[in-house]
Amino acid sequence: MAKPSRGKVYLVGAGPGAADLLTLRAARVLAEADVVFHDALVHPEVLALASRAERIAVGKRCGRHSTAQRFINKRLVDAAAKHRTVVRLKGGDPMLFGRAQEELDALRAAGIDVEVVPGITAALAAAADLGVSLTRRGASRNVVFATPRVGDGEPTSDWASVVAHADTAAIYMGAGEAAAITAALLARGTPSGLPVVAVENASLPGSRRWFTTLGALPRLAEKAFRGPVVLLLGEVFADAARREPAYADLLRRVAAHLLRA
Amino acid sequence: MAKPSRGKVYLVGAGPGAADLLTLRAARVLAEADVVFHDALVHPEVLALASRAERIAVGKRCGRHSTAQRFINKRLVDAAAKHRTVVRLKGGDPMLFGRAQEELDALRAAGIDVEVVPGITAALAAAADLGVSLTRRGASRNVVFATPRVGDGEPTSDWASVVAHADTAAIYMGAGEAAAITAALLARGTPSGLPVVAVENASLPGSRRWFTTLGALPRLAEKAFRGPVVLLLGEVFADAARREPAYADLLRRVAAHLLRA
Repeated sequence: MAKPSRGKVYLVGAGPGAADLLTLRAARVLAEADVVFHDALVHPEVLALASRAERIAVGKRCGRHSTAQRFINKRLVDAAAKHRTVVRLKGGDPMLFGRAQEELDALRAAGIDVEVVPGITAALAAAADLGVSLTRRGASRNVVFATPRVGDGEPTSDWASVVAHADTAAIYMGAGEAAAITAALLARGTPSGLPVVAVENASLPGSRRWFTTLGALPRLAEKAFRGPVVLLLGEVFADAARREPAYADLLRRVAAHLLRA
Repeated sequence: MAKPSRGKVYLVGAGPGAADLLTLRAARVLAEADVVFHDALVHPEVLALASRAERIAVGKRCGRHSTAQRFINKRLVDAAAKHRTVVRLKGGDPMLFGRAQEELDALRAAGIDVEVVPGITAALAAAADLGVSLTRRGASRNVVFATPRVGDGEPTSDWASVVAHADTAAIYMGAGEAAAITAALLARGTPSGLPVVAVENASLPGSRRWFTTLGALPRLAEKAFRGPVVLLLGEVFADAARREPAYADLLRRVAAHLLRA
């Protein structure tokens, strides 16, 4: 008896949001897909590229439980037995904060062919939007991509030490933990006046940005953010911040407060 | 008198090499370009997408002098006075080790409209090729992108401390300085047995990879590398290394050496 024909699974980076920031390869794979399992955060215009596929939302990137992840793994394995081209579409790049390893391991254990298609990650889209290079001669020779979030039962690794040592940092999934981020970095000697840019919905038409400082971040985060936010930290953002009227205003208010104290 | 019509300059990420890892937006901008100034490392298939443009090579990414950079800045400003769509095409992503800030500043100072189109950076393409996620629950919650190279007259920032603190690291432009990288990281307490993967020409058909350890990296680098290499460091590569026969062989030889000593 012939073995049942097996499909191939593609873990595809959907990029930061804008459909035209998908790679050509990702667009081709989506166009060929029979079924697409996608994060809730993937933009509808990106999903529309999978014109002939069944599209199945399987939860968002952060905050999902491991039981949900095991269920996704099982659905991917099952789909590969039934379809030729299965796509697992993840926001940003699959290999950065995408929980890709668990899916790769499950698919390999089941003997299924798997390929990863990279995507533009949110921090690089945000830097492009801002027109600020994350590295700069004489000012920044390294960039860390970090998250303060940890999974259930996982020890908190010392993300704050890495960020405090880096020239530039991008913090993912940190918008809801701004107070903890500021406290942890101040405790490691990072100056309160370090420039911070919060970019919400990078690359999308409704994208918003706030120029602030590490010390002022928690108050901003309390009232401002609505969508997914990447936090960019570093001296490389000082020039761009000075061009921003709202930031100049913040500095004036901080100075006035200090004079009153 | 009417002002001379001014063009727009696009700083475009060419991605890691493979033409289909360009974004859809980058492909569109290249197709519309009147003139393209490109790094020497950009793949011919990517350049071919700029079918109607004059294509001008302006040196490679690393090792070029600041006079050359000033000359590139001037050529971009001059081209924007003559053409509608000017593209500056850079390997990988423009905002990571691409010297983009100097070009952005020069163009803004000349009052020229400029837009950045992000690209897939080499480390993410390498991770996709390897099928290894750079982050992993319980093992890696942060990734640093660093380079040991500094410009003329620039103080050496402590890149090694950042890398030593990070869960996972990608080192760019480090292939020629493997001995210095190993020495600096060992001095900061990084274990000699830390898994290292060197990926040459990530995403291209002739791509090669070597699974090694931090301690064994200098000997490998002396004899093996020919093209651009990204070095990936971290425990997340241990499983992939164990699947690689050549690495298992290396471990056997190290063990035999230790038994003899």
